[in-house]
Amino acid sequence: MSTLSLKLRTPYLIFVGDESRTTYAKTGKGVADWRPELCAGQLRLSDDAADLDLPDMSVATAAEAGVGSLIVGTALVGGSVPDSWLHTLCDAAAAGIDIVGGLHTRLDSIAVLRDAAAAGGSRLIDVRVPPTDLPVASGIKRSGKRLLTVGTDCALGKKYTALQLERDMRAQGFDADFRASGQTGIMIAGTGVPIDCVVADFISGAAELLSPANEPEHWDLIEGQGGIFHPGYAAVSHGLLIGSQADAFVVCHAAGRSHVEGWEDYAVPSIGEVIERTIAIGSLTNPNIRCVGISVNTLSIDEEQRAAYLAKLAAKYSLPCVDPMITGTNAIIEELKIRT
Amino acid sequence: MSTLSLKLRTPYLIFVGDESRTTYAKTGKGVADWRPELCAGQLRLSDDAADLDLPDMSVATAAEAGVGSLIVGTALVGGSVPDSWLHTLCDAAAAGIDIVGGLHTRLDSIAVLRDAAAAGGSRLIDVRVPPTDLPVASGIKRSGKRLLTVGTDCALGKKYTALQLERDMRAQGFDADFRASGQTGIMIAGTGVPIDCVVADFISGAAELLSPANEPEHWDLIEGQGGIFHPGYAAVSHGLLIGSQADAFVVCHAAGRSHVEGWEDYAVPSIGEVIERTIAIGSLTNPNIRCVGISVNTLSIDEEQRAAYLAKLAAKYSLPCVDPMITGTNAIIEELKIRT
Repeated sequence: MSTLSLKLRTPYLIFVGDESRTTYAKTGKGVADWRPELCAGQLRLSDDAADLDLPDMSVATAAEAGVGSLIVGTALVGGSVPDSWLHTLCDAAAAGIDIVGGLHTRLDSIAVLRDAAAAGGSRLIDVRVPPTDLPVASGIKRSGKRLLTVGTDCALGKKYTALQLERDMRAQGFDADFRASGQTGIMIAGTGVPIDCVVADFISGAAELLSPANEPEHWDLIEGQGGIFHPGYAAVSHGLLIGSQADAFVVCHAAGRSHVEGWEDYAVPSIGEVIERTIAIGSLTNPNIRCVGISVNTLSIDEEQRAAYLAKLAAKYSLPCVDPMITGTNAIIEELKIRT
Repeated sequence: MSTLSLKLRTPYLIFVGDESRTTYAKTGKGVADWRPELCAGQLRLSDDAADLDLPDMSVATAAEAGVGSLIVGTALVGGSVPDSWLHTLCDAAAAGIDIVGGLHTRLDSIAVLRDAAAAGGSRLIDVRVPPTDLPVASGIKRSGKRLLTVGTDCALGKKYTALQLERDMRAQGFDADFRASGQTGIMIAGTGVPIDCVVADFISGAAELLSPANEPEHWDLIEGQGGIFHPGYAAVSHGLLIGSQADAFVVCHAAGRSHVEGWEDYAVPSIGEVIERTIAIGSLTNPNIRCVGISVNTLSIDEEQRAAYLAKLAAKYSLPCVDPMITGTNAIIEELKIRT
């Protein structure tokens, strides 16, 4: 099933399994945090499983309550789906609830789950499977406005920056939509393209589909992937950037991170280098591309030093600098109003 | 079957079918031109089919002569394999000859061909299928030397420049190997990775596998893909560049081409822009990357003006400038000796 033609059925039941570590339940937590209005409840298989602050709910109760999709909200450490999970997933599928996952094991490769879904008339949706028949990028200018979050590295807040921008822009009356390029983002948005799973020739074409032509004043807030200086993933970042035809971008950074996570021979580039290279590459498809802010994950910084840290960066680059989870993104939105 | 673990069986029978237009038989012509010593003959289904200047040979004769692989050397205009081809391919497969193709229709999706191959104990090899279990690029420096051909656009001589460099360097006693990143190149080299078919996250990892660690003085001559300023394919070019960890690169250009073929809104970048951007991006994984020459397809230029055209470009960029098909690549090899 194509994730672009995909629209997840709501409301959701978030499946936590027996995962007690919140970091491994981050997909479920992301959906609960950013789309609480869509979450009917959580299903935990043990008392010490992570609590997402949603009502506990059994499959039977969820089915009665009209739940549309069970979201597998935890990562698996091993490769295969444990039996204890499988019983619950089969019960839900047989009860007509769609099963949505992004595991390494494809849901539709599990025979008993396929049978249960067929019996219940429900769908098995794997958000890691990209659409088929993607086009090569046309490079043709689309109407509407686009902001892309880029990063000095992976895993430092590109998704959450885009989501907080969506929340803050909507609160100010903007017509704005988060556009998901990764699996957790797709579960949050209910649609999107897993850009890192796309065949190489179609990366930018997938990015064009992800943010289609829209009303002139509409903003797409596109979740970035990888990093343009990342030794493993830069090609994905490049393709997403030129396909997005971004009018604006925000550089995301993790305070205190000196080296690329998992690639310790590689220093993290400076924010200035990322700005310069992003403009150089992005200008190909949008000569008006500009940086409108810096978004820093300041978890590693003492609370009393945070404001000074952000102010220093803001002064250095003459750009608004926020921690989206703490200060929100209104300073960036002000810059957007002035500069785009 | 992984194209990296792949080693095509020789000698080859080049299948031309009933294709009379040489441009559509360019895969077969490429193998015949660059690996004539591996080609036992050609198989043409009609008298006006393109002649690759090889002995005409039937399947029966080829089998008796010990042919290892039948290379499907023509592109198909439509999607499916015509019956007239299928009979011949099945006969060859049943006679124990491997069938090697790069068509949109996968060979192993054709039931009668699968049956024939099973009966004959032969392999159906699709050079468009990338290896499975590719790694994400490590960025770790490999021993040996690498030259990558890059371009101002697609389809202007990156493959042939790398092949001519291989021929000329070997003639001078260099230990040098052409490394194929596209389907025609893979048929010529007998191995390689179809980099544009790889899943996005693994582009640079595939490029690392394509040019593995080697002797310190060994040169890999890597076939480039796409173009770093190409609105459709730049991401592939970026990933191939950083995974190649190129010590040297040659910029390929087609004289007289002003716009990207098929993307007429996009001007072709200047050679200087390509040099600058390639160094900027390639420096991530190899800070010593440098440009060692310019390779121009001068087909569009009058013969008496060619030398002046090449000399002018050489002076402008202070680099050797050749048309590899006419002047050879020795001028670039001299630069290589001095600068790497």
